[in-house]
Amino acid sequence: MAGYAWMSLTTDYGLSEGFVAALHGVIGRRAPAVRVIDVTHLVAPGDVRHGAEVLAQTVPYLPRAVHVGVVDPGVGTARRAIAVETPDGLLVGPDNGLLVPAAEALGGVTRAVHLTNPAWFEVPVSMTFHGRDIFAPVGARLAAGAPLADAGPDIDPADLERLPDPAVSVGDGYLEAEVVLIDRFGNVQLAAPGSALSGLPDAVTVGGVRAVRGTTFGDAAPGGLVVYADSADRVAIAVNGGRAVDVLSVRGGDRVRITTP
Amino acid sequence: MAGYAWMSLTTDYGLSEGFVAALHGVIGRRAPAVRVIDVTHLVAPGDVRHGAEVLAQTVPYLPRAVHVGVVDPGVGTARRAIAVETPDGLLVGPDNGLLVPAAEALGGVTRAVHLTNPAWFEVPVSMTFHGRDIFAPVGARLAAGAPLADAGPDIDPADLERLPDPAVSVGDGYLEAEVVLIDRFGNVQLAAPGSALSGLPDAVTVGGVRAVRGTTFGDAAPGGLVVYADSADRVAIAVNGGRAVDVLSVRGGDRVRITTP
Amino acid sequence: MAGYAWMSLTTDYGLSEGFVAALHGVIGRRAPAVRVIDVTHLVAPGDVRHGAEVLAQTVPYLPRAVHVGVVDPGVGTARRAIAVETPDGLLVGPDNGLLVPAAEALGGVTRAVHLTNPAWFEVPVSMTFHGRDIFAPVGARLAAGAPLADAGPDIDPADLERLPDPAVSVGDGYLEAEVVLIDRFGNVQLAAPGSALSGLPDAVTVGGVRAVRGTTFGDAAPGGLVVYADSADRVAIAVNGGRAVDVLSVRGGDRVRITTP
Repeated sequence: MAGYAWMSLTTDYGLSEGFVAALHGVIGRRAPAVRVIDVTHLVAPGDVRHGAEVLAQTVPYLPRAVHVGVVDPGVGTARRAIAVETPDGLLVGPDNGLLVPAAEALGGVTRAVHLTNPAWFEVPVSMTFHGRDIFAPVGARLAAGAPLADAGPDIDPADLERLPDPAVSVGDGYLEAEVVLIDRFGNVQLAAPGSALSGLPDAVTVGGVRAVRGTTFGDAAPGGLVVYADSADRVAIAVNGGRAVDVLSVRGGDRVRITTP
Repeated sequence: MAGYAWMSLTTDYGLSEGFVAALHGVIGRRAPAVRVIDVTHLVAPGDVRHGAEVLAQTVPYLPRAVHVGVVDPGVGTARRAIAVETPDGLLVGPDNGLLVPAAEALGGVTRAVHLTNPAWFEVPVSMTFHGRDIFAPVGARLAAGAPLADAGPDIDPADLERLPDPAVSVGDGYLEAEVVLIDRFGNVQLAAPGSALSGLPDAVTVGGVRAVRGTTFGDAAPGGLVVYADSADRVAIAVNGGRAVDVLSVRGGDRVRITTP
Repeated sequence: MAGYAWMSLTTDYGLSEGFVAALHGVIGRRAPAVRVIDVTHLVAPGDVRHGAEVLAQTVPYLPRAVHVGVVDPGVGTARRAIAVETPDGLLVGPDNGLLVPAAEALGGVTRAVHLTNPAWFEVPVSMTFHGRDIFAPVGARLAAGAPLADAGPDIDPADLERLPDPAVSVGDGYLEAEVVLIDRFGNVQLAAPGSALSGLPDAVTVGGVRAVRGTTFGDAAPGGLVVYADSADRVAIAVNGGRAVDVLSVRGGDRVRITTP
């Protein structure tokens, strides 16, 4: 009865229907003592990379938990349902790359299992809602202390699906990287780590617009661009009192180039 | 002190103000040990049928609970506040049809009560926020173990307000039914039960567009329409990798006709 | 080990990233027994007054708690991090006016502290996410029973930043006040207290449109305007079955004049 006192949920289900509540209910019925933290349910529909980034950037701040992630455009097809063990928690979800960055943030994959034990599933298993019928009930069983070995056969971690690495290119006086996340404030997060800023001067241009290298929004003049290492230690671009996403006219997956003016 | 370990909340209050938190607070002060699951607070404003469908399709997956539902355009008028008992939980809310489909999903109405005991209400009772002042506090009292008989006088279940049945028509080689829910993925759910699909061939047309009868999104070619029984066992229409609602140009209440091509 | 069994969270972080979950995680790791109520995370970005109003109007209905509020456009600048004690709970957040109206709703500021104890912070403290790195961990420590004196040095409550009072003007047969909140139903809440209605006749005009003075939506004919004291005891304007915000074409901060026709 080791188990986990906490679970987390990350999906693209939205908040307008009862889908998220069904996950909470399925967990509550199987593991009533477990506490559940909602990471987000507003991952862009079917956007596995978006979900993977949000999950990976959030799990380091959560209690030790079973993290259920469901961004699953292939639900009902041959893609596998998996659980992934790390030194600091378990991850449960589809084998489509969603879970791997979070596993790395938790210390790396130490074991992976193909979820095939039907006794752990909601009956009947629907073809379109594996969050409710497979991932949440399996996660709840594991949180309640059931052994991972009972969930199904082991998979070679090297065989897990992985997302391609986002584009990052750093050189003498420039940095070019893919837009990973854009938050509610219009701040634009790039795939490059914060350390990539060290090769840049204090005054730069971003997509041709003048910017300062700083540490917080107030380092730029009001309305001005600032390039900084954000709270996930990624290179990010903000506007003091404004929205960088609108100034730069970018969206997820676009490349942004930061250069010496 | 039987009571309930769980409650659920379903409203059209939105998430931008503190209305939902006030419900949680009112419950927490009266029944601090009770756990609360939010079904959704994004029911279309005042759309009783929408709320009724979401609630009815979700409660089967929740723990045994007191379910508070508030979609209540008649708040402050003569409509009654009620509690409805079922074999598998209690429902609390306005007597406007919202709770009945969920009661049927929980085994049917075994008893109904008119909530008139002012000692259970928040004081003073506002004229426009009965969720906070009547439904949540009454639900919390009942969850904490207070007897239903103390909430007010019995009502004949036959006298409860009911919504008209949504339109469903099934015949030889066709099925026509009202759109009930459209989810975040653009999947279109009809009022017809999944069993209604059995009379249709493998290739059909939906609103004049070719579609396949299948079991999951991937049964259609990318961009193609699939007709299937969804996770609530309703007939639904999806596009593999796309949004059926955009292809069909429908909205809640519209009728969709599925026929032999 | 007095402490608090409950915390609440009010932010402008939105629900699309993992920011809110990080707060829950930071709290769960430091104060696992504490229960957390989300007031809202959809305060208009950087809109301190909006956040202050929502928080102040909600806290009276919450259990005794440590309330963490973060609407913090000056994060990373010289603005202070503070905790404010009241007779009925603690408030933690930036010293920018956000917390003071809620403190007044809880009985007034009895003590204020400048949060400077780095042993209570997440390490390292980011420059842009003090909710995660300062306010939530400090709130969790206080909820878990740590003494306020250990959080940092006292501040004179008179030195706290305060927002300017919203405009309210009441006279013979008229009332003019600033729009404070507009809810999901399009109801328009003004800064004036409900008692300000007593000087108005039963029939009034609002921004030139005829309205009735009533107590709930149904007091107006369908589509008609009603002026009433809302559930927070503020003067508000609604349309029976419609959206007052659209009829009046107002937004937060605008002034609305209610007069004798």
